[in-house]
Amino acid sequence: MKNQIKKHFSRYVEFNDSEMDEIFSKLTIKIFRKKEYLLKEGQVCISKYFLTSGLVRSFYTDNKGSEKITQFALENWWVTNMESYIKEAPSYVSIQAIEKTTALIIDKAALEKLFIKIPKLERCFRLITENMLIAIQRRNDIYLQMKSKDRYDDLIQNFPVFTQRVPQYMIASYLEITPEYLSELRKK
Amino acid sequence: MKNQIKKHFSRYVEFNDSEMDEIFSKLTIKIFRKKEYLLKEGQVCISKYFLTSGLVRSFYTDNKGSEKITQFALENWWVTNMESYIKEAPSYVSIQAIEKTTALIIDKAALEKLFIKIPKLERCFRLITENMLIAIQRRNDIYLQMKSKDRYDDLIQNFPVFTQRVPQYMIASYLEITPEYLSELRKK
Repeated sequence: MKNQIKKHFSRYVEFNDSEMDEIFSKLTIKIFRKKEYLLKEGQVCISKYFLTSGLVRSFYTDNKGSEKITQFALENWWVTNMESYIKEAPSYVSIQAIEKTTALIIDKAALEKLFIKIPKLERCFRLITENMLIAIQRRNDIYLQMKSKDRYDDLIQNFPVFTQRVPQYMIASYLEITPEYLSELRKK
Repeated sequence: MKNQIKKHFSRYVEFNDSEMDEIFSKLTIKIFRKKEYLLKEGQVCISKYFLTSGLVRSFYTDNKGSEKITQFALENWWVTNMESYIKEAPSYVSIQAIEKTTALIIDKAALEKLFIKIPKLERCFRLITENMLIAIQRRNDIYLQMKSKDRYDDLIQNFPVFTQRVPQYMIASYLEITPEYLSELRKK
């Protein structure tokens, strides 16, 4: 698992073995059962989660009581609720395992200390955050303006693994279409 | 202007006078006339812009030829197209001044050098990026799911200055409603 996160970091910054030991010593490994929550709406999110295996979703319940899925994340992705994490305020989303999921967890307090000890790690997280921002911005700017069929095509083209591993009703929620319409799109 | 950006940075990190001199020496001041472009779609965005006065919009043209406004920014905000900036690829959005706008401009190459010389600046930009991400994520997750009337109410409550300074047809584009419907909402 240390090699997996080292490989992930190396996309941005190279760490030597003693730096990796230092970072790894601050991480907690946790296994979440299918349907278990990494974070529940209303809790303060104090951690960032690096998924070494598995699949999770972020979602909230709208005022009509229906679940809105805002994000999926799988192995080698970071997941957190950034707003709750930064503002130390209750999260408006829940994060839940769709499959059995293993995460390396780093708490904010520990990470802040590591940033001071290993400034390269701060660079690494600046770059990770910039890349998260790009993904969210593109979804915001373009994706949600596409027709549902184009959104579905975009999803299967860019993230075929989601359509294989995520239950269909969740895909429909993410695409903001009905499960019936998704089933029609899949037949085509 | 140096005091204005120093005050802005101090929300995240305090810099001493010699650090501020060093940073400020790498910034270019530029005044954009109303309707002038900071960035045109198709150009590579090599800079981050800190607005000391004025108001700009980011927008793209959809495949039906209509302009979609994705973001407004005003004094004391940073604006850039992050995807183009990071990937050094052509931008899919344009950034245009709505009012006469003054910007402090920092180029990517200069900023990367400054990060190495003044690591606190990298912390500062990590925190700025995290805050940008929160704003974009909230718009993505919740705002676009609201009814048009609620989106309008949210905008006038949180950013009353936009509804005073931005032309109505641009507000309508941002809210993804027709100008006629916006005019109805304003009468209520």
